[in-house]
Amino acid sequence: MTDRRIPRHPTDDYGREAVARRQEFVREHTESALQHTSAYSLDPATLPGNIENFFGAAQVPMGLAGPLLVNGEHAQGEFFVPLATTEGTLVASYSRGMKLCRAAGGATATVIDDRMQRAPVFSFENARAARDFRSWLDEHFAEIAAAAESTTSSGKLLDIQKFSVSKLLYTRFNYSTGDAAGQNMTGKATFAACAWIKQNYPGELHFLLEGQFATDKKTSVVNMLHTRGKRVVAEITLPNDLVQEHMHVDVQKLFNARQRSLMGSIMSVTNNNGSHSANGLTAMFIATGQDVANVAESSAMYGFTELLPNGDLYASVTLPALIIATYGGGTGLATQRECLEMLDCYGAGKVHKLAEIMAATVLAGELSLASAVVAEEWVQAHDDLGRNRP
Amino acid sequence: MTDRRIPRHPTDDYGREAVARRQEFVREHTESALQHTSAYSLDPATLPGNIENFFGAAQVPMGLAGPLLVNGEHAQGEFFVPLATTEGTLVASYSRGMKLCRAAGGATATVIDDRMQRAPVFSFENARAARDFRSWLDEHFAEIAAAAESTTSSGKLLDIQKFSVSKLLYTRFNYSTGDAAGQNMTGKATFAACAWIKQNYPGELHFLLEGQFATDKKTSVVNMLHTRGKRVVAEITLPNDLVQEHMHVDVQKLFNARQRSLMGSIMSVTNNNGSHSANGLTAMFIATGQDVANVAESSAMYGFTELLPNGDLYASVTLPALIIATYGGGTGLATQRECLEMLDCYGAGKVHKLAEIMAATVLAGELSLASAVVAEEWVQAHDDLGRNRP
Amino acid sequence: MTDRRIPRHPTDDYGREAVARRQEFVREHTESALQHTSAYSLDPATLPGNIENFFGAAQVPMGLAGPLLVNGEHAQGEFFVPLATTEGTLVASYSRGMKLCRAAGGATATVIDDRMQRAPVFSFENARAARDFRSWLDEHFAEIAAAAESTTSSGKLLDIQKFSVSKLLYTRFNYSTGDAAGQNMTGKATFAACAWIKQNYPGELHFLLEGQFATDKKTSVVNMLHTRGKRVVAEITLPNDLVQEHMHVDVQKLFNARQRSLMGSIMSVTNNNGSHSANGLTAMFIATGQDVANVAESSAMYGFTELLPNGDLYASVTLPALIIATYGGGTGLATQRECLEMLDCYGAGKVHKLAEIMAATVLAGELSLASAVVAEEWVQAHDDLGRNRP
Amino acid sequence: MTDRRIPRHPTDDYGREAVARRQEFVREHTESALQHTSAYSLDPATLPGNIENFFGAAQVPMGLAGPLLVNGEHAQGEFFVPLATTEGTLVASYSRGMKLCRAAGGATATVIDDRMQRAPVFSFENARAARDFRSWLDEHFAEIAAAAESTTSSGKLLDIQKFSVSKLLYTRFNYSTGDAAGQNMTGKATFAACAWIKQNYPGELHFLLEGQFATDKKTSVVNMLHTRGKRVVAEITLPNDLVQEHMHVDVQKLFNARQRSLMGSIMSVTNNNGSHSANGLTAMFIATGQDVANVAESSAMYGFTELLPNGDLYASVTLPALIIATYGGGTGLATQRECLEMLDCYGAGKVHKLAEIMAATVLAGELSLASAVVAEEWVQAHDDLGRNRP
Repeated sequence: MTDRRIPRHPTDDYGREAVARRQEFVREHTESALQHTSAYSLDPATLPGNIENFFGAAQVPMGLAGPLLVNGEHAQGEFFVPLATTEGTLVASYSRGMKLCRAAGGATATVIDDRMQRAPVFSFENARAARDFRSWLDEHFAEIAAAAESTTSSGKLLDIQKFSVSKLLYTRFNYSTGDAAGQNMTGKATFAACAWIKQNYPGELHFLLEGQFATDKKTSVVNMLHTRGKRVVAEITLPNDLVQEHMHVDVQKLFNARQRSLMGSIMSVTNNNGSHSANGLTAMFIATGQDVANVAESSAMYGFTELLPNGDLYASVTLPALIIATYGGGTGLATQRECLEMLDCYGAGKVHKLAEIMAATVLAGELSLASAVVAEEWVQAHDDLGRNRP
Repeated sequence: MTDRRIPRHPTDDYGREAVARRQEFVREHTESALQHTSAYSLDPATLPGNIENFFGAAQVPMGLAGPLLVNGEHAQGEFFVPLATTEGTLVASYSRGMKLCRAAGGATATVIDDRMQRAPVFSFENARAARDFRSWLDEHFAEIAAAAESTTSSGKLLDIQKFSVSKLLYTRFNYSTGDAAGQNMTGKATFAACAWIKQNYPGELHFLLEGQFATDKKTSVVNMLHTRGKRVVAEITLPNDLVQEHMHVDVQKLFNARQRSLMGSIMSVTNNNGSHSANGLTAMFIATGQDVANVAESSAMYGFTELLPNGDLYASVTLPALIIATYGGGTGLATQRECLEMLDCYGAGKVHKLAEIMAATVLAGELSLASAVVAEEWVQAHDDLGRNRP
Repeated sequence: MTDRRIPRHPTDDYGREAVARRQEFVREHTESALQHTSAYSLDPATLPGNIENFFGAAQVPMGLAGPLLVNGEHAQGEFFVPLATTEGTLVASYSRGMKLCRAAGGATATVIDDRMQRAPVFSFENARAARDFRSWLDEHFAEIAAAAESTTSSGKLLDIQKFSVSKLLYTRFNYSTGDAAGQNMTGKATFAACAWIKQNYPGELHFLLEGQFATDKKTSVVNMLHTRGKRVVAEITLPNDLVQEHMHVDVQKLFNARQRSLMGSIMSVTNNNGSHSANGLTAMFIATGQDVANVAESSAMYGFTELLPNGDLYASVTLPALIIATYGGGTGLATQRECLEMLDCYGAGKVHKLAEIMAATVLAGELSLASAVVAEEWVQAHDDLGRNRP
Repeated sequence: MTDRRIPRHPTDDYGREAVARRQEFVREHTESALQHTSAYSLDPATLPGNIENFFGAAQVPMGLAGPLLVNGEHAQGEFFVPLATTEGTLVASYSRGMKLCRAAGGATATVIDDRMQRAPVFSFENARAARDFRSWLDEHFAEIAAAAESTTSSGKLLDIQKFSVSKLLYTRFNYSTGDAAGQNMTGKATFAACAWIKQNYPGELHFLLEGQFATDKKTSVVNMLHTRGKRVVAEITLPNDLVQEHMHVDVQKLFNARQRSLMGSIMSVTNNNGSHSANGLTAMFIATGQDVANVAESSAMYGFTELLPNGDLYASVTLPALIIATYGGGTGLATQRECLEMLDCYGAGKVHKLAEIMAATVLAGELSLASAVVAEEWVQAHDDLGRNRP
């Protein structure tokens, strides 16, 4: 086997030379010129901790949507939302929804819960031993929390959930994590907790740090039920004439269509009985430096609507697993920090504000797309604005 | 309400002036300087069809992983994979897995199926009328296909799946879509098909173009069972000593741990019994101009492993809903095209090759993370390479 | 270990002596007198093929509900439904629902689909070989069907569904089975088909006769989507004043409550967004000699309701996996046959009629319980009629 | 509409005359002679609280399986298990599994958890009000519990689980219920609790007594995760030669087959990754006077097996939602009580013992059927013992 190792610099791997050598390596071994990929303004010196083998930057175009009027506990007033995407129509569609929301007095947004977890599974000789351990965990919660929290200045162990099967005990160590998303923090803290447990538990046990009960980067019912990251609701009440004016549909017709799409989402067994939360969230995640892979779980959504006695439509979205940060991770990078600053959401104490803005954005997008489908304007919009080449 | 409308140019909205005015607007109404956001090399004139209200570009750092040795039907040989991410450790972890795969002779990758759909729901007066329509659909398939295909040069209607409930018939119009992802194409074609149906069906019917049975941008069981986009498998057989050498774990121990994580994934009810397919896929999606919101569905994964009689470990990943393109959408943008060219995957006839490379990448990442968890090296790796600030 | 073997008679195990010896054995080894258990009127000579080690009969009390007015394609007119249960209130509740349905002109019932399956999984050396086998199956369908049908006079192989993962191919061999439930028939036929396949397939393959894709005796999404047994709908349109009169609730209030229970069923992830189909079905299954264990899957239900423009309530139930017979199995036993005869559903050509009656019964029960919960009469009813001892 | 009302007696509806009139009514309006249906030994005077409109009894044949050797905390020693079924092969198959378990030293059975619930949903003006109510519930738990427990002598409110969405709060009121199954008790207690809440909560709220989060008579993920009724494990370790001798298969082959059936159960999305728990449970439920409709939820099962380093097979079943009673409901009826007495499980203090016996029975059945499928003896067994008429 020929040795074609990617060049790395022993001491200064984010320096100009190392990066240039990797770009050269790519040009040499592939058909790519890397003209644009190497034309970035960010400073590679800021990248350790975010990426290895850095060789360039992807440029993702961003559109501006808004103003989005949010009545949050943290986000109050109008926001202009940066959306990084390559899907034509997306920015226009969200903007349309935001306009409707604004006309209706804004979207009310509320963070309901906030917790991040790591989920070790413990194995025992038999089911009875596993059951004994359940009680022992409860009795030693304070010491376990102390061990976990010794590894972090901002994380707090809230509780330990327990799920029994066979001779195994699956757990969820739930933490509050401040303005960080907290996956690494909770991993480290839980590892310390498990080490303490292994040392102090009088019986024999084995553990695996992740037993698929936190389902990091994967959507799951358990996360939707019990929250991973932020659980946040955006809701609004829409008079029929306003919807008619902006969306060209009657709310009764919209509501009836929703009954059929609800039935469809039940039968197809999806993690999302709405339309396209992933669109708005992904675009904001890329723009604001979130871990975009979390879209897999963060795009999970519960939609709930009601036709009120006065004919108004109550519409809401609940995001049960919104994993975001305003500090740490990719939030401090060049363009990402600028986008957070656009929302006044960079740094400490801002993460609930960002959660509220994201939920309100999702709500706007749901109203827009659902209306377009019912009004049969959807295909036309994509034909006008999307690149329907093929 | 004050009028703070985002500036748009009536005739040249992607021109220098329009963009500059929007940047100015952002600076005026928010605390953001947009210094980096406005420092892009892409040409905004290429953006119509990809974004509206363009005001700048997000720069997402990219790392280089590889060489990845793929034994595909389309991808053959070694590839250097661009990964756009801000999650520290990710590139290193995938690289580690690729090294193991290469040492074992490479990952075998196979595209099993390929179809994109739009899923109208039809409503009738009662269940019997809905049942009658099932037969009518079968009898008129050729005409319906003709109506659908009249709107597209590359899409072909493969079949129409039918799911009955109450007085409704949910359908999936399945298409082959060439090298495009095909969501817009299938929307347009199905709309034409539905119009033809409405005009020609002798009875009364109503339709809604999307009944939540294609679950665009949402993961679902129906898509995992019946494929959305590409269904692709990557598989490999690993001798124990190789795993020991590269991953510092015994395959028996790895396999045992997997039994517990499988049980966890069954109990937590996730769409993915693996570890973190979303990480590699998201990073490749951003790099190569895919619609990143599709990560919500494309990251769904079935992992299947066996311990062979000779002590080797057979490992495989199946991606049942990989939605990708090598043509159209964001694939032709500045950096995105360069990254596709790195893989020799830009343009016509390349999409199965890209699918194979992505699946092989996912397999490498699964082997690496699963091993790290079992070897208890996972937390340490993140502590060394990830930005564990909080 | 002491040898306490259950007595069996070498030649006449259903004869008086053999049964008496087992009863004596029970009395000897346990504290049970078996006074009632041995007081049955059925003739044990009819039991071979239905039970082994027969020692007595359970007496399950039956109540009479009805008249149930059904507008089916097979069941037309009024029926008196035997319900075998020990749950107080159940018969009364179903009767109440039947009265409402009758007042509204009866429930319309329609069998939408009918198929029974066995689901072998085939294993190959790799994914590509598994994919090749997909096409081979299609090409040899006629021969495979011939092999399968050689084992049965009434079963027909309708099609073979295919689900690919890794190097495996999961299949569903779908059969029509006449008036029998057909689990044994399809098992035998599919075993013959697999034997033919193994002998004739040019490549190497292994098979397991059941790969958990027919999920016999287990509810599953795949069975709900693709039908197991009968897929049958019962539907009705109810004027508001009728509901008010019989159920003491307003249909608007009923519909609003349903929105919340729908949301609950989505979040809790159940196989049934209705109330208690299992109650009526189990009671009819015991009464009419069905395989009662199939309640696990047959009780799966999709409920769909609409509030019509004129204020009427449209309500429907869809049973996607109703596994029943009017011939074979337990249908010919003493009381079971009598109960089928009450419905004119014993013997050949009656199974769709029975399916319609069962669906209509379920609908009646849904209307009754849903109303009782909303009218807050539910707890009171159980307190009056149910044995609320503890 | 002709009036064909089922005869009821105003004062003595379970008396000889009332019952005879209903039998006459059936004979008059249907083609059924009710010869066997009217030949019961039970005393109808015992039936109030169990059934309305009593007109006869179903006779379900019972077979004897065993001895089943159980190493429980409550059930210790050998048991002879009554199985009421009409499915040929069932008793024989369970007996075979019991024989293997006995040869291996018996099945260890452990009750892990025990709770019954009613699940009201509370509605508010908006999400913030719903969130406020969460805290209020915690603060007033003692008073709520007092209100709930005022309606029952044996039930205790253990805790209230909360699941937020939109402006709604779904709850699960979890109770211990002694030897009763407890559905009625918890309904009544929770209704009292809700009345107290409605009266004392300072804000506005509406409630619906059941919000589909207890999923009575319906299987659900939430019940499988959080237990409904008894959560009970049965487990055993089987030497290979024993399995070879009794089941004619190698444990390695059995384990490999299980990997494929596991994958199948993941893909088909079933509530049960085992084979046929519903068979044994239904047969015991009918025999022992349980509410048989609960099979819909009680048959849910998690199977977990391991191949141990010494070549033994560890096998276990976990029943997360086993809803049973040894007191109240149908347990005191004529044959039902006798069957409970066969197991020494009638009356107070016996319900955990019964749970252990049921779990051990299920384990035996799983071992038998899984082996038969792998040994390819399954179809033959049904052909020999089952009534393969059609």
